[in-house]
Amino acid sequence: MESSSSPLKSNPTAEEETSSRRIQRLSLHLNPPPSENSAMEMATCAARAKLNVNTTQLSLLMRGKHRDIQEKVYEFFRSRPDLQTPIEISTEKHRELCMKQLLALVREAGIKAFKYVVEDPFVYFAIAEAAGSVDVSFGIKLGVQYSLWGGSVINLGTKKHRDKYFDAIDNVEYPGCFAMTELHHGSNVQGLQTLATFDPLTDEFVIDTPNDGAIKWWIGNAAVHGKFATVFAKLMLPTHDANGFSDMGVHAFIVPIRDMETHETLPGVEIQDCGHKVGLNGVDNGALKFRSVRIPRDNLLNRFGDVARDGTYTSSLPTINKRFAATLGELVGGRVGLAYSSVGILKIAVTIATRYSLFRQQFGPPKQAEISILDYQSQQHKLMPMLASTYAFHFATLLLVEKYSEMKKTHDEELVADVHALSAGLKAYVTSYTSKSLSICREACGGHGYAAVNRFGSLRNDHDIFQTFEGDNTVLLQQVAADLLKQYKEKFKGGTLTVTWNYLRESMNAYLSQPNPLTSRWEGEDHLRDPKFQLDAFRYRTSRLLQSAAVRLQKHSKNLGGFGAWNRCLNHLLTLAESHIESVILETFINAVKNCPDASSRAALKLVCDLYAMDRIWNDIGTYRNVDYMAPNKAKAIHKLTEYLSFQVRNITRELVDAFDMPDHVIRAPIGKQTPVEAYSEYIQQVGFQ
Amino acid sequence: MESSSSPLKSNPTAEEETSSRRIQRLSLHLNPPPSENSAMEMATCAARAKLNVNTTQLSLLMRGKHRDIQEKVYEFFRSRPDLQTPIEISTEKHRELCMKQLLALVREAGIKAFKYVVEDPFVYFAIAEAAGSVDVSFGIKLGVQYSLWGGSVINLGTKKHRDKYFDAIDNVEYPGCFAMTELHHGSNVQGLQTLATFDPLTDEFVIDTPNDGAIKWWIGNAAVHGKFATVFAKLMLPTHDANGFSDMGVHAFIVPIRDMETHETLPGVEIQDCGHKVGLNGVDNGALKFRSVRIPRDNLLNRFGDVARDGTYTSSLPTINKRFAATLGELVGGRVGLAYSSVGILKIAVTIATRYSLFRQQFGPPKQAEISILDYQSQQHKLMPMLASTYAFHFATLLLVEKYSEMKKTHDEELVADVHALSAGLKAYVTSYTSKSLSICREACGGHGYAAVNRFGSLRNDHDIFQTFEGDNTVLLQQVAADLLKQYKEKFKGGTLTVTWNYLRESMNAYLSQPNPLTSRWEGEDHLRDPKFQLDAFRYRTSRLLQSAAVRLQKHSKNLGGFGAWNRCLNHLLTLAESHIESVILETFINAVKNCPDASSRAALKLVCDLYAMDRIWNDIGTYRNVDYMAPNKAKAIHKLTEYLSFQVRNITRELVDAFDMPDHVIRAPIGKQTPVEAYSEYIQQVGFQ
Repeated sequence: MESSSSPLKSNPTAEEETSSRRIQRLSLHLNPPPSENSAMEMATCAARAKLNVNTTQLSLLMRGKHRDIQEKVYEFFRSRPDLQTPIEISTEKHRELCMKQLLALVREAGIKAFKYVVEDPFVYFAIAEAAGSVDVSFGIKLGVQYSLWGGSVINLGTKKHRDKYFDAIDNVEYPGCFAMTELHHGSNVQGLQTLATFDPLTDEFVIDTPNDGAIKWWIGNAAVHGKFATVFAKLMLPTHDANGFSDMGVHAFIVPIRDMETHETLPGVEIQDCGHKVGLNGVDNGALKFRSVRIPRDNLLNRFGDVARDGTYTSSLPTINKRFAATLGELVGGRVGLAYSSVGILKIAVTIATRYSLFRQQFGPPKQAEISILDYQSQQHKLMPMLASTYAFHFATLLLVEKYSEMKKTHDEELVADVHALSAGLKAYVTSYTSKSLSICREACGGHGYAAVNRFGSLRNDHDIFQTFEGDNTVLLQQVAADLLKQYKEKFKGGTLTVTWNYLRESMNAYLSQPNPLTSRWEGEDHLRDPKFQLDAFRYRTSRLLQSAAVRLQKHSKNLGGFGAWNRCLNHLLTLAESHIESVILETFINAVKNCPDASSRAALKLVCDLYAMDRIWNDIGTYRNVDYMAPNKAKAIHKLTEYLSFQVRNITRELVDAFDMPDHVIRAPIGKQTPVEAYSEYIQQVGFQ
Repeated sequence: MESSSSPLKSNPTAEEETSSRRIQRLSLHLNPPPSENSAMEMATCAARAKLNVNTTQLSLLMRGKHRDIQEKVYEFFRSRPDLQTPIEISTEKHRELCMKQLLALVREAGIKAFKYVVEDPFVYFAIAEAAGSVDVSFGIKLGVQYSLWGGSVINLGTKKHRDKYFDAIDNVEYPGCFAMTELHHGSNVQGLQTLATFDPLTDEFVIDTPNDGAIKWWIGNAAVHGKFATVFAKLMLPTHDANGFSDMGVHAFIVPIRDMETHETLPGVEIQDCGHKVGLNGVDNGALKFRSVRIPRDNLLNRFGDVARDGTYTSSLPTINKRFAATLGELVGGRVGLAYSSVGILKIAVTIATRYSLFRQQFGPPKQAEISILDYQSQQHKLMPMLASTYAFHFATLLLVEKYSEMKKTHDEELVADVHALSAGLKAYVTSYTSKSLSICREACGGHGYAAVNRFGSLRNDHDIFQTFEGDNTVLLQQVAADLLKQYKEKFKGGTLTVTWNYLRESMNAYLSQPNPLTSRWEGEDHLRDPKFQLDAFRYRTSRLLQSAAVRLQKHSKNLGGFGAWNRCLNHLLTLAESHIESVILETFINAVKNCPDASSRAALKLVCDLYAMDRIWNDIGTYRNVDYMAPNKAKAIHKLTEYLSFQVRNITRELVDAFDMPDHVIRAPIGKQTPVEAYSEYIQQVGFQ
């Protein structure tokens, strides 16, 4: 809401007037306010005001250090039209094609991803992202094989498993599944009901599905291709008392599900096809039911807990909960990969939508040429903060991948804790944002965005489930909130905060003191674009949410118990988690700007970073206003600056998306081509006109 | 953000304390604050506090008066499994199936929709909605035939056209197209480039596509089935001066495109297939290119402008713009139908998502049973305001359909203006909301929401384009804003406002006076749930946005011209339009509550209406806070009340969705069945388990 012209503005008090004059004096360094130009004049003005971006330099920064192996993937599939996924394909054929893509990658292109899962995850994520840009299903199929099935064997098993399975997983001789989710239990993994009962007579585990709710559901690779499955089941050990068996908690077991020669389903295993899905139909999800399926004792993935020949249980970890946490902790790589790939998908969509918006023209001033639709304020509003967020997420997920890679090498405990919370938060935040953005991109491109060839449909449908698998976003955000509260309780007073939360100490102090009535009125562009102001604002919000959440939880716990109190504050806690993640993203972006070696790129990134910060603050302006962290006129200035920065970013949009450095054969959408004049003509040819 | 526990609360001044006590005295009628119970206790409490809803009564109210013909459609397709669209189907087969569905509806079920387009549009919309619930593609295929192709012939033509085409359109002997959009021009219809040049020698029009940008694109029924097309083209009349031809503006012409016997494309017409789309693949969209295609003069749809044998032009309307407006004005029915059908789709999605959330259980307090996911505050936050909006939109689109039907009978001028703005606004607002909601529903149902059989994918993909066709939402909202500004300028001072805007007079007065410092602090539940407060808040916002937009536009016009000023204020104008539409929706809902004859239903609707109002206000709380329309504590009270009302609505969710009265064979999704125990078992059977 614009209030500049409001006759209703409450009369300032004398004191306010004084302080207002004081602010004016203090704002000597204030930049001139954004000039007020029409779209036409803006275009002229743009030539003057526009930043000069060196796309090559910026692109070098954005390509990432593992671009070479990505290019290998791109080039291989470019040279093999027979392996490219057509616009329309049946589920059955799509599944076969995806398997062919995976086999060709490994056996023909010679790109073996599995070793990187263990040795250099950054390279693995780069390969997975490139595979995903060929076909998201292919990227996920690869992830099922190497990160889920392969990762469970390597990370939850021991040397004997590695020796036995590594090569055959690597070259896809052993396609496998990750059978965790059951029909009745997805998020609540501790509620899984599948049983693995040790039989000391035969030295085997007996795998059973005790009821239909325990059918393993949504298991990738199960419907068609899988030979093995890592099955998560409650380990039941015989006891000598009346109970008969003791429940040792959820463990992972390698269960062969199909015959190595005939590919027939093995006795006791029933496999059904989960059928057509909203997207990702190149991945064959199936449902698995076990009836007394016997596997050797060696098939227990025994890194965190083992069963001896006589049925005694040993573990380096003392409790079921700790073993469970260690087991799930090893699976965090999936989240890192999803967050990273989600940004890759967002880049493709933003590239297509902004390039189309640059060349598409519609309406214009009377008796003049039509204008580019990206010159409309409304289109800038839809796409420019999205482009800024894409950059922000790029740096944030890069940091996450680097931390994760480091963690896999050092196993540093503090880093482990950091990566866990950061991966949960970024996966949830980024995939939710990308999902919404894919819809906005489609809508922003109108009818031509609805042509399947322009990709928004399949990207959206395929990406959609990123919000759910590897941890439902709503559940993951709660993990972030829980972690923040833990840090708050245990460490705020005197203890050390892990890296990601270090900022809380300082901003918590700021929060606990009175808000500054002066800075709450500062509205100069210099001030608003000062990283310190931006970070302070983001962190103040997080600190405030954290402190109030802690107090509310304590208050409600008395009457409602822990679970009830948590639920009572759930929306508050989710907002807290998002706020924290936004703070981390902004901090990472600000650092990336600061450390950018090339001046022209730095200026462009600074502009984009400011838009990211202003847009986020404006979107949550009610929060800031409610606590008078910002005066009404400051809120208004932020709104104006957001619109102005969107216009500024619009002027370097082409350079910004070119810097993602996605070649046309990766973008593929006719309306997203780098050379806009070709866009319509390719589109026309594509439907059959000569 | 929760501020109750903030130590930062600014110290109240003495004056504030006095006024605070005064408010407390004034709030004697305040309801007790929402009780604070855990999810568990809530369940117990719910039994006590829960409204007793008579589903049969509420359902009678919600079914609408044309439910009988809808049931006929439902029952016919229920009895014909061969006509039901499978979960996965190729584009080619889907197109054939959709045509079969249409033919069967007309020729076997005997439901002929065309006469209702003219005589009783309400019945027509009911049929289209029911067809859409069978398959959204089928609903749109029907709309292309009767509302677009048929509607253009009847509404833009004269008696000769009606006599010649009515029956053959009605029984689908003449399947036809509505060829308006071109590759380069969608929203800007006046920019169409296709030419229709009168040849006085042969008494014919010659239809030409002057360049590739003028290829008719996205034309439904064109790729496969259409025999005719209503082609929108610039009418060129020969002149006796040097120009040679005079451009009379866009007119509509009936152009045969395929041979009646052989179905071969006619000479001079080139038809290509627009190919696979994000959704709606049962509709065969094609691209049409014309090379000197000759049609008789009679094929001009000549209601608003005619050409005599000698080439002279006559019209009852004086200018090109007026004729253009009259022509487009006749097409408003399409928007009415889309808004109405969009609510139908939203009802299906909300029904599936809430029913699943009621029976799905995950996590729970330690050592207790897991709880329904709809008992989580976060799930209530996702779905309860959506359910409330569905009710709100139900009444709003009902009003629109009634007004439109009335307009078609009376042609009352004020009603025409009213229906135009209302249909543009509601179509844009409702379809945007439904699109977002379909994604939220999928995500709220986790993995099981991703199974194609549970429908969110196809509903979202099919509905997606509702935001674009029949007027891009961003463009339509600008029409609403322009209309508001016109009303503001021309009629505010002394003139009469048309019905929908009447409220502006009063609220503009409120807005132009100082805000009431007392009411801005009232936070009692009685006050917040008072329809007067709610409407005042909604309308205040609209008035404020309208007044400030008018002032800003005037200011910027001096430097930027009209077009530049409009673009400069575009985001502001879109917010204004949305705010207005929300005011209209709330008013309609409040009236529906007031006029509800059954007390139990009235109480339920009142609860739902309050949630709608509180949720909307809270979503835009920054706006209200920025102008001190609401004090911080009032904002906080609104937030609390929104969460409390969500919880209250959750307690009657089953009844509220049951009242939509969508039988299981219309809902179809296994997880959306009315009897929840059957949901899992049907789902299990559906993938093949016995």
